[in-house]
Amino acid sequence: MATVLYPGSFDPFHNGHKELVETAASLFDTVVVAAMRNPQKGEALFTLEERTAIIEETLGHLDNLRVISFSSLVVDLAKEVGADFIIKGLRVVSDFESEMAQAQTNLAVSGVHTLFLPSQSRYSYISSKYVREIARFGGDVSMMVPATAAKRLQDRFTK
Amino acid sequence: MATVLYPGSFDPFHNGHKELVETAASLFDTVVVAAMRNPQKGEALFTLEERTAIIEETLGHLDNLRVISFSSLVVDLAKEVGADFIIKGLRVVSDFESEMAQAQTNLAVSGVHTLFLPSQSRYSYISSKYVREIARFGGDVSMMVPATAAKRLQDRFTK
Amino acid sequence: MATVLYPGSFDPFHNGHKELVETAASLFDTVVVAAMRNPQKGEALFTLEERTAIIEETLGHLDNLRVISFSSLVVDLAKEVGADFIIKGLRVVSDFESEMAQAQTNLAVSGVHTLFLPSQSRYSYISSKYVREIARFGGDVSMMVPATAAKRLQDRFTK
Amino acid sequence: MATVLYPGSFDPFHNGHKELVETAASLFDTVVVAAMRNPQKGEALFTLEERTAIIEETLGHLDNLRVISFSSLVVDLAKEVGADFIIKGLRVVSDFESEMAQAQTNLAVSGVHTLFLPSQSRYSYISSKYVREIARFGGDVSMMVPATAAKRLQDRFTK
Amino acid sequence: MATVLYPGSFDPFHNGHKELVETAASLFDTVVVAAMRNPQKGEALFTLEERTAIIEETLGHLDNLRVISFSSLVVDLAKEVGADFIIKGLRVVSDFESEMAQAQTNLAVSGVHTLFLPSQSRYSYISSKYVREIARFGGDVSMMVPATAAKRLQDRFTK
Amino acid sequence: MATVLYPGSFDPFHNGHKELVETAASLFDTVVVAAMRNPQKGEALFTLEERTAIIEETLGHLDNLRVISFSSLVVDLAKEVGADFIIKGLRVVSDFESEMAQAQTNLAVSGVHTLFLPSQSRYSYISSKYVREIARFGGDVSMMVPATAAKRLQDRFTK
Repeated sequence: MATVLYPGSFDPFHNGHKELVETAASLFDTVVVAAMRNPQKGEALFTLEERTAIIEETLGHLDNLRVISFSSLVVDLAKEVGADFIIKGLRVVSDFESEMAQAQTNLAVSGVHTLFLPSQSRYSYISSKYVREIARFGGDVSMMVPATAAKRLQDRFTK
Repeated sequence: MATVLYPGSFDPFHNGHKELVETAASLFDTVVVAAMRNPQKGEALFTLEERTAIIEETLGHLDNLRVISFSSLVVDLAKEVGADFIIKGLRVVSDFESEMAQAQTNLAVSGVHTLFLPSQSRYSYISSKYVREIARFGGDVSMMVPATAAKRLQDRFTK
Repeated sequence: MATVLYPGSFDPFHNGHKELVETAASLFDTVVVAAMRNPQKGEALFTLEERTAIIEETLGHLDNLRVISFSSLVVDLAKEVGADFIIKGLRVVSDFESEMAQAQTNLAVSGVHTLFLPSQSRYSYISSKYVREIARFGGDVSMMVPATAAKRLQDRFTK
Repeated sequence: MATVLYPGSFDPFHNGHKELVETAASLFDTVVVAAMRNPQKGEALFTLEERTAIIEETLGHLDNLRVISFSSLVVDLAKEVGADFIIKGLRVVSDFESEMAQAQTNLAVSGVHTLFLPSQSRYSYISSKYVREIARFGGDVSMMVPATAAKRLQDRFTK
Repeated sequence: MATVLYPGSFDPFHNGHKELVETAASLFDTVVVAAMRNPQKGEALFTLEERTAIIEETLGHLDNLRVISFSSLVVDLAKEVGADFIIKGLRVVSDFESEMAQAQTNLAVSGVHTLFLPSQSRYSYISSKYVREIARFGGDVSMMVPATAAKRLQDRFTK
Repeated sequence: MATVLYPGSFDPFHNGHKELVETAASLFDTVVVAAMRNPQKGEALFTLEERTAIIEETLGHLDNLRVISFSSLVVDLAKEVGADFIIKGLRVVSDFESEMAQAQTNLAVSGVHTLFLPSQSRYSYISSKYVREIARFGGDVSMMVPATAAKRLQDRFTK
């Protein structure tokens, strides 16, 4: 009965994240998606509440999904939620090295393993950073994010 | 009840492979390790029988492990053994891109997913290719491969 | 009036190549697609005649396209066909470095420039090498190559 | 009659940028160089006016060149100036992935293509970031930037 | 009689840094370790005095070691201390490209060469950035840093 | 009194290799350049005797240089010639990972360290492989190799 933890900033949650959660939900018993505060990435666009709301509105129909927010160490959260391991997506080489270092650090510090799921190639160009940039200038991001995220981005930037 | 397939050339099986199988056996219900013919890599050093024997002798004590050999498409084998998904190790960037392309191709062709397990950093430099090269010149590879593989390499090259 | 040269092995021509030619044909006046002998890649699957036939059958409706084969230096061919520059596709990091070195070498040797077109992300996992491998084992490659290539692969490997 | 758009921060314009514009001006009918505000890169060293002035002073003799500044989405600018496509330089792997993602995002959002020109290897180590750092400490950057940029950097930092 | 300069932020000095200094001290006559201010990396965790104290306390027994701090250009410092060349560690690809560009820039600007020492693989995942992050949340970093650094991190974050 | 070993295939020795040897000869007491048989790279173009002759003819004026050939393990050779460490050049990311793995393997097997020297950027595109390809088709490689190598390539391929 595998429970997996999928942590991320999800600012905002996009179609690449969505595809990964759907895959994980089809492979494992329970998927815990955790939106984290990331002080390193500067000020967030959406609050943690808005970010988890977007995930719930998009994937709430999956009955083995749990959506939470957190601001502690990922490995502490993994233990708290009873995760067997962490899952992360991999898109490109630049993801790969920082994710590998984090995974090896987390394993050394806590014994918690990380498994990687490759993104489907048609989503591999999507990143939250470009979604924010384009939305900020009024560009159309509807092919990159779920409908509820697109609406909130539009509300945010066109007022 | 997840069954995972771990395919590879394993020519020879080394300590990085061994660590990955041990991790997978601790996370999943059943691990099928499959040694494959790889015509692309030129003539093999060990036969498929020798390769699976090394794996059995090294990890035969794990009771949720099955060791087989194959010479078909990985995705066909995955279906044949009832695997829920494929697992592969990731060490370095150059692994990453060819593994990503294979994973995305396998998914497109068959719907079978691939998950990646990062190697522990202290094994990340080990590759079957360097093991073969060093053993061929009579170098000491005992810190890179299981004892039974070291012995077979020594037998092969010092006679 | 820009004429561009698109050289490659095209063994076989796949959907990523096709998309690149269509883009180039929409941006430039004339596109010369040249299938080359590549002794470095070992024995070819299709002859140069078969490879150019697949390209013609797939894209012959484009009226600013010319399909040829060659076995000389790319930069000599570029001058022979009156190309203003060479175009190549870029998919992944491992392409990038060898393509950069070839482009810089070609420029140093001949003064001929190379421009790169990024592949669309949904085709970025496709490579002729995997197409050949999968077709060889009777796998389905119809979502990766044009119909005429899929048919020829099936004829080749299922007889 | 191809018109191409070359966008960048150009803070400051250096010899690698200069070489790229000269190449583009020799290959295409019109080259529009656009200096952009980049809030992501923190506070700029030079104003947009200074940056475009450096480009004009360095390359004003090219009669198919137009230098502008902008603070909108690149793809909107491309349409506004009637560009057939965008061109960007490629130096190293770390450029490559973020440029690929931007190019694929821009294509998905707007249909505007991006082509890449490899830098000549002797300029590949030059980046605006190191130019700024070295100039800030009074180091000599005259082999990395046009004369007018070197003078302005010296004026800025030695007063 | 080679004198080498090893510059870095060392915020904090970790086991990968330590291993590199020990190797350098075994290969060269004199090793000058220089802790630098790095305004680009944001506010530092430890002062330069604390950082050099950690290095002294950890490696003060090496009699061909000199520990200093600096806030000028690395190449100026290299000349000031009479270094024959600079040494830097290399762990992963993402290090590699920025280190290569810095080394090539430093050579072009001053004629000072840089040599790279590969990290031992078992330390390759350690970075000061993750050490700070984990310590900040009260995690255990004792397997990643020297004892004196671990103690200072604990003092800093658990009060 | 540092003695360093610089091993390679040198088939043929090119200007990037030459620059590296000149730098090493300026930094260290003795430089041993060793041309190796490399069965992995297929049949060589030049014999070991021709390869060492090209190096001698090009750099024989350096009085702290020794040129040899070998066909054993690099680490055994390092001990045999009394080298303090091995030096290798680094050009691009794809070099980096295989060189790192070799360096870490050599260290684990024998305790011999490897230091890397970055190539100067203007030589970074040159590789023996492209030199051979271009020369084979009668192309001009005189800006990529020493005069004696250019002459031997011309003799080989134009007769």
